[in-house]
Amino acid sequence: MTKLNIAVLGAGSWGTALALVLADNHHDVKLWTHRESQADQINESHSNEKYLPGVTLADEITAFSNIRDAIDSTDMIVFAVPAKATREVAEQVNQVSENPAVIVHVSKGIEPDTHLRISQILEETLTPEAMSDLVVLSGPSHAEEVVKRHPTTVTAASENIEAAKKVQDAFMNQHFRVYTNSDVIGVEVGGALKNIIALAAGITDGLGYGDNAKAALITRGLAEIARLGVKLGAKPLTFSGLTGVGDLIVTCTSIHSRNWRAGNMLGKGHKLDEVLESMGMVVEGVRTTKAAYQLANKYHVTMPITSALYQVLFEGVHPKEAVDQLMTRVKTHEMEDLVNILEDQGEKTGE
Amino acid sequence: MTKLNIAVLGAGSWGTALALVLADNHHDVKLWTHRESQADQINESHSNEKYLPGVTLADEITAFSNIRDAIDSTDMIVFAVPAKATREVAEQVNQVSENPAVIVHVSKGIEPDTHLRISQILEETLTPEAMSDLVVLSGPSHAEEVVKRHPTTVTAASENIEAAKKVQDAFMNQHFRVYTNSDVIGVEVGGALKNIIALAAGITDGLGYGDNAKAALITRGLAEIARLGVKLGAKPLTFSGLTGVGDLIVTCTSIHSRNWRAGNMLGKGHKLDEVLESMGMVVEGVRTTKAAYQLANKYHVTMPITSALYQVLFEGVHPKEAVDQLMTRVKTHEMEDLVNILEDQGEKTGE
Repeated sequence: MTKLNIAVLGAGSWGTALALVLADNHHDVKLWTHRESQADQINESHSNEKYLPGVTLADEITAFSNIRDAIDSTDMIVFAVPAKATREVAEQVNQVSENPAVIVHVSKGIEPDTHLRISQILEETLTPEAMSDLVVLSGPSHAEEVVKRHPTTVTAASENIEAAKKVQDAFMNQHFRVYTNSDVIGVEVGGALKNIIALAAGITDGLGYGDNAKAALITRGLAEIARLGVKLGAKPLTFSGLTGVGDLIVTCTSIHSRNWRAGNMLGKGHKLDEVLESMGMVVEGVRTTKAAYQLANKYHVTMPITSALYQVLFEGVHPKEAVDQLMTRVKTHEMEDLVNILEDQGEKTGE
Repeated sequence: MTKLNIAVLGAGSWGTALALVLADNHHDVKLWTHRESQADQINESHSNEKYLPGVTLADEITAFSNIRDAIDSTDMIVFAVPAKATREVAEQVNQVSENPAVIVHVSKGIEPDTHLRISQILEETLTPEAMSDLVVLSGPSHAEEVVKRHPTTVTAASENIEAAKKVQDAFMNQHFRVYTNSDVIGVEVGGALKNIIALAAGITDGLGYGDNAKAALITRGLAEIARLGVKLGAKPLTFSGLTGVGDLIVTCTSIHSRNWRAGNMLGKGHKLDEVLESMGMVVEGVRTTKAAYQLANKYHVTMPITSALYQVLFEGVHPKEAVDQLMTRVKTHEMEDLVNILEDQGEKTGE
């Protein structure tokens, strides 16, 4: 394996875990954080006390708070910042980059109002001087398990399959499996929208509704994600893969998921402000709910779970009322909903 | 709602829970068990001590151990016996039935060697005098939650959509939602084969491999179930529905699932004999693994998880060795596997 210089931008739990995977594969890793004190702490103790306490970071990882130093003669830049910080960090990269690098992003979200996916924000912001190729890395992967070298499987998606393969080669090892995929839109939409369903699943769990209700919610949730995704240009099959059903399962059923935890608190009667404050981390699903709700209206896509959650988050509807209303929709033929996916696809092909 | 006479054959936890749903809807329910002592116990205490301890059964439910009395002037017969008892009980029904009834079955399995689905066994066994229509009721539904009236959503599938609607009308209420579907093959294959993946998920959990590994396993499992199902005549979309991904999720992530529990014990190092003995209930996934393995060979369908599990169950391969081998398959393009589903479908359409 060729040894690469790789910059990971963002030293949260996921960025740090990916830095560890790359160090395991003997690449030189520069981990950037905008906080100088955090960079110092990481370099002094070879650990990330705030986001991955107790995990030792290999010597191949060096932390930087100066972005120019972090991306100096780099082969690959991994954006691992929260979705809403993507644009700002990309602008910083632009200002200091000297050679084009493969750009990887691992963030999940859709920008409210502009409705841009992360890769679109990057394409809009990064110049050709900063970017050669763009790849999304996504899939069912809690950082806490990746750093324990538990088996994990993710997808590297790019319109340029050679770029996806470069990323596959850089990250792949015995514990961390990487599949390639060409459907960037599907991978990004699945990754972003699963956080909506995770919030809703947390709410049903918080209400004490059990596994049957949650399985129904996840299934119906997958259908509405696919409906919107196909409308936006995704391939339907992508939603049956690791970044669709796989990521949805892990986010909706694992206590590691902060979106699930936030939903769980809402289901137990806490107010949104209170929940967000107590989390102390970004809860992407809240912003994504707003973006997806706007997109559903714009494209006339039926998204009952997203609508119900929007009402809970932004219009003060009580969670129990919203969930009970979801469960008592008129009886229907199961395929009516699912078939819409194919019809949407048919319309798209017919364009 | 029309009040019906409904016979539920089999007084295990699921048959009893469904009897309770029907009684909530004010139907007259006759619950049959082949054990006279169990019928007496149910009628005396209005509870099913063995399978649903602590749950009070409504007065509308009467237990019988004589099958003729149970199905006397019945409108609908619900087969809720273990898969391997289906044929024998259907033969008994034939001998005593006087009027044709709608036949519903809620069992999950595929017969080893004959490779028949439950509905095929029933069609082979029941005469027109005993059967007017055949409907499968299936979906993510633990009995323990249904009896608590927690929200539950299932699918009623039949080639005759009017029959499916009759079953929908009989079972549907505020807590128990029933969707109709016309894909009997897809619903039965999904319901049966998810038990294989649940066993495998139990093994990875027993090995301590975490949520990332389990999500990957469930995703890849869904793909191989769909591949075989489509080959057998199912519609691919059914596997994205309640009886596909929905049932798979609930069975693989819930402690209520006996297939998961059996797998979990295997993952922790117990022998199969020991596990089956300690369960004291039928573990359908073991028989289904054999049937699916045979079918995969017969139809040349790639089913890596089923093959690995077959080796563990019947050829003495150590669970850790089997799972590690699964995780370290050569790197590949994610869609190669999924696209096979569509190719299989294409072949089928081209026949």
